[in-house]
Amino acid sequence: MAHCEPSAHEVTLVDAGLEILSEEECLQLLETTRVGRVAISMGAVAVVLPVNYAVVGGDVMYFTGEGVKLDAAAHGRAVSFEVDQIDPDGECGWSVLVVGRAALAGVGAQARAEALGLYPWPAGLRHHLVRIRPELVSGRRVLS
Amino acid sequence: MAHCEPSAHEVTLVDAGLEILSEEECLQLLETTRVGRVAISMGAVAVVLPVNYAVVGGDVMYFTGEGVKLDAAAHGRAVSFEVDQIDPDGECGWSVLVVGRAALAGVGAQARAEALGLYPWPAGLRHHLVRIRPELVSGRRVLS
Repeated sequence: MAHCEPSAHEVTLVDAGLEILSEEECLQLLETTRVGRVAISMGAVAVVLPVNYAVVGGDVMYFTGEGVKLDAAAHGRAVSFEVDQIDPDGECGWSVLVVGRAALAGVGAQARAEALGLYPWPAGLRHHLVRIRPELVSGRRVLS
Repeated sequence: MAHCEPSAHEVTLVDAGLEILSEEECLQLLETTRVGRVAISMGAVAVVLPVNYAVVGGDVMYFTGEGVKLDAAAHGRAVSFEVDQIDPDGECGWSVLVVGRAALAGVGAQARAEALGLYPWPAGLRHHLVRIRPELVSGRRVLS
């Protein structure tokens, strides 16, 4: 599968079979999927919840309703966002982790996100658009 | 797709389109996939890393090498573990979140895990087997 192929450019291996991705490649991969996971640290443990998202102007954006994801954005808290594509048959794939401050997106960003086809997949009241501006970006690939 | 179908039994809706899964159903779903994400709270933010895993005697188990996942287990810290199956075309699917204390598994558990076919997919030194005993289990399904 395509996501199991090594990078075209020179890579750094952490150790055999695990490739560290460049920030540029991570940001490219971030635009190739539509579902990721928001992880919010709640003291000793993290809450991890999947969302459908889009990358708009370099920011990760997703809609949410009332709850921990909205609270984190309303308070401008740092959150993590993870995406991966792993082929269980090939036992290979990649993952990208973004850390950045969550914030409520403005009206302009909302119009852009909606124009890109972003809307909440679950029914119900989820009209708050959250954006994460990537501050730390890292990624790894497991080769087959 | 199968993971987009509603539960066979009576369900509680959070709101339209989002179904809260019972603990029993979450534990069943946990056994249906082979890749999940370990989330470790590092103060203000969480590190989220995918692993291939197996459920052995009710515990989530995965191999790891040196790093934050091993540190968390060596210190018996509470970690989160997330699995999901989401169909981007059907815009539906489910997710399960487990919270529990990570620990290094004993020799007996390692033999059982290996007998079930668990081994680290990346090459390299990843011979530490970690187990998470689920203490809090929750899950949600987005219906199409």
